[in-house]
Amino acid sequence: MEPVLRFGMVGGGEGALIGDIHCRAATFDRRSAIVAGCFSRDPAKSAVTGRKLGLSPDRVYATYEEMAEKEAAREDRIHYVSIVTPNKSHYEIAKTFLLRGFHVVCDKPLTIELSEAEELKRIAARNGLLFAVTYTYSGYPMVKQARELVRRGEIGDIITVMAEYPQEWVLNAVKPSWRMLASEGKSCCVADIGVHIAHTISYMTGLAIESLCADMQTHGTLTELDNNANILVKYTSGATGMYWCSQVAAGSKNGLKVRLFGTKGSLEWHHERPEELLLSLKGKPLQLLARGRDAMYPEAAAFNRLPGGHPEGLYEAFANIYAAFGSELEGLLDGSGSGAGADYPRIDDGIDGVRFVDKCLESAQGGSKWVSYAP
Amino acid sequence: MEPVLRFGMVGGGEGALIGDIHCRAATFDRRSAIVAGCFSRDPAKSAVTGRKLGLSPDRVYATYEEMAEKEAAREDRIHYVSIVTPNKSHYEIAKTFLLRGFHVVCDKPLTIELSEAEELKRIAARNGLLFAVTYTYSGYPMVKQARELVRRGEIGDIITVMAEYPQEWVLNAVKPSWRMLASEGKSCCVADIGVHIAHTISYMTGLAIESLCADMQTHGTLTELDNNANILVKYTSGATGMYWCSQVAAGSKNGLKVRLFGTKGSLEWHHERPEELLLSLKGKPLQLLARGRDAMYPEAAAFNRLPGGHPEGLYEAFANIYAAFGSELEGLLDGSGSGAGADYPRIDDGIDGVRFVDKCLESAQGGSKWVSYAP
Amino acid sequence: MEPVLRFGMVGGGEGALIGDIHCRAATFDRRSAIVAGCFSRDPAKSAVTGRKLGLSPDRVYATYEEMAEKEAAREDRIHYVSIVTPNKSHYEIAKTFLLRGFHVVCDKPLTIELSEAEELKRIAARNGLLFAVTYTYSGYPMVKQARELVRRGEIGDIITVMAEYPQEWVLNAVKPSWRMLASEGKSCCVADIGVHIAHTISYMTGLAIESLCADMQTHGTLTELDNNANILVKYTSGATGMYWCSQVAAGSKNGLKVRLFGTKGSLEWHHERPEELLLSLKGKPLQLLARGRDAMYPEAAAFNRLPGGHPEGLYEAFANIYAAFGSELEGLLDGSGSGAGADYPRIDDGIDGVRFVDKCLESAQGGSKWVSYAP
Amino acid sequence: MEPVLRFGMVGGGEGALIGDIHCRAATFDRRSAIVAGCFSRDPAKSAVTGRKLGLSPDRVYATYEEMAEKEAAREDRIHYVSIVTPNKSHYEIAKTFLLRGFHVVCDKPLTIELSEAEELKRIAARNGLLFAVTYTYSGYPMVKQARELVRRGEIGDIITVMAEYPQEWVLNAVKPSWRMLASEGKSCCVADIGVHIAHTISYMTGLAIESLCADMQTHGTLTELDNNANILVKYTSGATGMYWCSQVAAGSKNGLKVRLFGTKGSLEWHHERPEELLLSLKGKPLQLLARGRDAMYPEAAAFNRLPGGHPEGLYEAFANIYAAFGSELEGLLDGSGSGAGADYPRIDDGIDGVRFVDKCLESAQGGSKWVSYAP
Repeated sequence: MEPVLRFGMVGGGEGALIGDIHCRAATFDRRSAIVAGCFSRDPAKSAVTGRKLGLSPDRVYATYEEMAEKEAAREDRIHYVSIVTPNKSHYEIAKTFLLRGFHVVCDKPLTIELSEAEELKRIAARNGLLFAVTYTYSGYPMVKQARELVRRGEIGDIITVMAEYPQEWVLNAVKPSWRMLASEGKSCCVADIGVHIAHTISYMTGLAIESLCADMQTHGTLTELDNNANILVKYTSGATGMYWCSQVAAGSKNGLKVRLFGTKGSLEWHHERPEELLLSLKGKPLQLLARGRDAMYPEAAAFNRLPGGHPEGLYEAFANIYAAFGSELEGLLDGSGSGAGADYPRIDDGIDGVRFVDKCLESAQGGSKWVSYAP
Repeated sequence: MEPVLRFGMVGGGEGALIGDIHCRAATFDRRSAIVAGCFSRDPAKSAVTGRKLGLSPDRVYATYEEMAEKEAAREDRIHYVSIVTPNKSHYEIAKTFLLRGFHVVCDKPLTIELSEAEELKRIAARNGLLFAVTYTYSGYPMVKQARELVRRGEIGDIITVMAEYPQEWVLNAVKPSWRMLASEGKSCCVADIGVHIAHTISYMTGLAIESLCADMQTHGTLTELDNNANILVKYTSGATGMYWCSQVAAGSKNGLKVRLFGTKGSLEWHHERPEELLLSLKGKPLQLLARGRDAMYPEAAAFNRLPGGHPEGLYEAFANIYAAFGSELEGLLDGSGSGAGADYPRIDDGIDGVRFVDKCLESAQGGSKWVSYAP
Repeated sequence: MEPVLRFGMVGGGEGALIGDIHCRAATFDRRSAIVAGCFSRDPAKSAVTGRKLGLSPDRVYATYEEMAEKEAAREDRIHYVSIVTPNKSHYEIAKTFLLRGFHVVCDKPLTIELSEAEELKRIAARNGLLFAVTYTYSGYPMVKQARELVRRGEIGDIITVMAEYPQEWVLNAVKPSWRMLASEGKSCCVADIGVHIAHTISYMTGLAIESLCADMQTHGTLTELDNNANILVKYTSGATGMYWCSQVAAGSKNGLKVRLFGTKGSLEWHHERPEELLLSLKGKPLQLLARGRDAMYPEAAAFNRLPGGHPEGLYEAFANIYAAFGSELEGLLDGSGSGAGADYPRIDDGIDGVRFVDKCLESAQGGSKWVSYAP
Repeated sequence: MEPVLRFGMVGGGEGALIGDIHCRAATFDRRSAIVAGCFSRDPAKSAVTGRKLGLSPDRVYATYEEMAEKEAAREDRIHYVSIVTPNKSHYEIAKTFLLRGFHVVCDKPLTIELSEAEELKRIAARNGLLFAVTYTYSGYPMVKQARELVRRGEIGDIITVMAEYPQEWVLNAVKPSWRMLASEGKSCCVADIGVHIAHTISYMTGLAIESLCADMQTHGTLTELDNNANILVKYTSGATGMYWCSQVAAGSKNGLKVRLFGTKGSLEWHHERPEELLLSLKGKPLQLLARGRDAMYPEAAAFNRLPGGHPEGLYEAFANIYAAFGSELEGLLDGSGSGAGADYPRIDDGIDGVRFVDKCLESAQGGSKWVSYAP
């Protein structure tokens, strides 16, 4: 049985980490096969990647426009496209494929402008197309377990949220990467990793931001945009939060960490120990929940692949997003609707991320003033 | 050789944790002996404590005013008084003893009003009296080691500071303690533990706050004042910080934690693991410095009592403050000046704490607006 | 470009964890494609697995003998077979495929009898065939980094080795699994996980066992064989060691942990934190080496897939074994010899494991007497 | 109220760590006062210590024999003596004081020869004298909590015990300390720290050793006796254990660690995190019990001094031993018998330690043969 789903990729040429991750994740469960791509603006590089992936040369395209057009004309056309290019190009590429009737998986942040993100949503909705945005961390089973614990009221009403995402790579950079350039976007740090905080908290808790106050800074001389942001948040429920994202935090690797403090208990998840969840319930000792060993809610357990003590990592988290997206897409294609409502981040999550970046910028540019999230 | 220094205590009657800690800490090194006290407003309770401490009954006083007056008249008068009463009374008691010529050790926060704290400073200065404020955590050797690492530039210029002090006791309270009452002060959480964050950061880094933005909240119905505060800080150096203190953080015990991120490295100290210091220097693996085992700067090593792997704790940290205060006081009394400049928190640190509380309140009451620290 | 290598699998039918792991690992890098199999003794179950894997029905075989025979006759025959059946059958299956000229990847323990393992070695050598034994843990990059640190003398001469591999599954079992049965082998715990300790230590250190003393026990009523073993080891170098493996260690998941203590430093690697390596060098603070972030020797770094802070896990470790095996096999097939000597566990490692089980049994059955490893 | 109990010390002169610890521990609760001593064989050094401790010069003695004789003649004689000299002298000193009618606190190992230890027991019993042996680690509240959990059957019947006590100081030594010399005892490592393992396990579990097999080694050239020992243990209950003690374990500080695996759960306590206890119960997530925060049995909670999150350390553990000893002694002196049976290590524990050393030596000297513990 060949994989049911065929997909193509835009971006992800040689040396592109995130493209390789998408490709392995999409195919991890033999549900999707990559059959087409436009991996680089340089056709030679694109061809190399195509060969490595075993693609037919006529399905390695010079431009994404050509890819969308020619794939649309094929009998065995791709079902969806994965977009893993620099952020600025997401909008045009996604739009092009949506207009040709392709489902889309797109990396985050979805777009630079909020209006762009909203337009993509309208086009997708109009054409009945699925649109996933790959917020990686929501693919981890213990993040899903945290969400279920919150949903079921185990930690009570949330009082305050502490979330952070420190990295250190800008400190070590010797020349600017595209992310650092003002020509490539409006924000570097908040757009790249702040959105992961915002999504993870939203995903785990369902809390909606009412207002925020962001102090965004640029340290060093290489970065033209923000590389550290300290943010206060107020949620509509009355809860509060503190978000910190940084690309100049010496000694940090990729340290997304979330702590939720509720009236009945608290939760902690740390990306450096993704297989664990710390749960403290009022009047009880701290519990260390281990993925695959300890009882998990079905919504989370469904994403376990290996038993306890057999570490899963980032590839598997990513594969979980593709697995959920794929299950809904298969159900859509075969008319059964079997995977409808599957658990993966969707275009609304993508829009939320763009709004979060905009609001942080609005606050920071106003002298770190409080800005309302109300429309 | 009897201990050189004689002291008395105001507060600290039966069941008072902090009084007992002060008493053990002061006498830990046989440098000070307790000889007088007014331990409670209830003379019977005070007498019990006096007997337990082996005091002569005529030096267990009914009121602190009487104590100050009668001790002042004795040949073998106390050299200093330790004040461990509820915060609101610190000012009057300290003033009374200073005016009688006694050196003072006072718990934090120093006073309720900034003007009170500043007045105490003037009186102490005028009379050449020492005044220690017991910010416990600056007594830990690894906190001192962190300070020395920063001073020597090991982590470069500080970019951002992450500090927190979560507790959970308010969640478990069944009736209000005095700290929760508006009649006892202006702030509960920031005044009680927020000041420890402010002092620890100031002590470790020397950074001066330029402005801050505080979101102070009250959760639950028992507390009349703040029990959670999320605070953004800007320092005069251009560095930024986030401070979080909470008394409603389920699962937290007494979790002061400080992380400093600089241009060349980062540092982490956590009160739950007080014997360790995490040090990450650019381009090098994370190092875990162990008190008593690894090389320490003399200013920190001087406070080591036990070799590595033999845990020291809170009593010893507290004793370090009394040891430094005692060494300066002995040098003052014998005219040698030998302990001048010893490393313990002084009245200026106490004043800073009161100002920190005031500024947080000013910000919070103004809708979490940014307030300047400038005079 | 299709994957160069074609392989088939014996065992690994529906619900078989280890078969699925092998299959994902072998194909993870698009170097191998599965094209044939005999996944179960039940043809219907085997067919289901074949369909899921997209195999041509005529290459899903009823017996492994048929598979070996028919594959041998094909133009597009498999290059190698992966054997993932219960231990007792490894010998016959491996022998059958070797005799037909197929390279072999076989799970551990290689065989039940030492003579069987040695015979397989002779056959493979005679026919110029590669033979990998999947000691999973040697696939982790930080295990390889540990090996390189030892090789380069960073921790000096090894004084003592502490190694353990506790699990708890037997405590939770409600009926016997095949591993527990005397009809399936001579040892349960040592054969299943003790061999991982022996291999990991041998791989990391190169130490050769001179003699050992094993206390093997059976706890509970379900297991017919050992489920806990406490073992003292003396190496030919004069170093000593303690190995503990258990399947009745409550709270343990899959806790392989290795500590090496040398004259100049010590190393620690724990499978629950596979991305870290603790390194303590004389006179220096403890270092926590993080995969992908900190400097690694080329022999280890070559196996990194993701940057620091992006967790890799068991699938990737397993894939590293297949990648090394595949690189040597490709070089053999294309005549370049390019991957010769690649870093993966070979038949000699498999033989060592069987000898280790035999020696432990000999010791335990003699009243936990010391037994020599000398031939 | 002056402390009820008066004591003297033999050993513990300037620079002697353990003497200072005993002295602070004994006086920590104001229950005992030091009033006499023979701190060094050098009278000048002894006098310095005496002055520092505020002793009357006529109670600082030149020899312990003189001290025993003269104290026995005083009205205000000491109630007990603390013996903190090198091991070899414990026997003669303890005997001398017992024969004069003094209660004794003695450091471990109690004596060099088993017959000596047994003789001390007979003398103490004959004279109705208390005799404590300071196995430090049994003073930690969480060690006591572990004991209570085992007693109450929380982890079921013990299957296997993993215990270790690694240090590294011998690796760093530049000249021999007395402990390393054959003239000072029969064992270095097992006698100094191995006995702590044996006592802690005995204390926590009540398990009695049936037989053991010890591989004792000497690494490096400075030590004349053992500095590393790997030991297999069989208990009379059928449980097994592995003990490892080392003074050549690079990177280790003072790492006593105990893990108990039972049929219903497991426990772990580590001296580097003395405030925590890891408890894993069948079918439940791992729990991290925090001293002072989580529910503790009364037998353990009675020894808590500070609330949760306020670290206690080694001084306090030591003080707990003196507190229990003191409570029994007070009850004996005042005739109330109020502290009878208090929880502190007694002479039988001391005897057990000496036997443990003897049995390890017997095994090691017989080629690491199994030796029976039966009389």
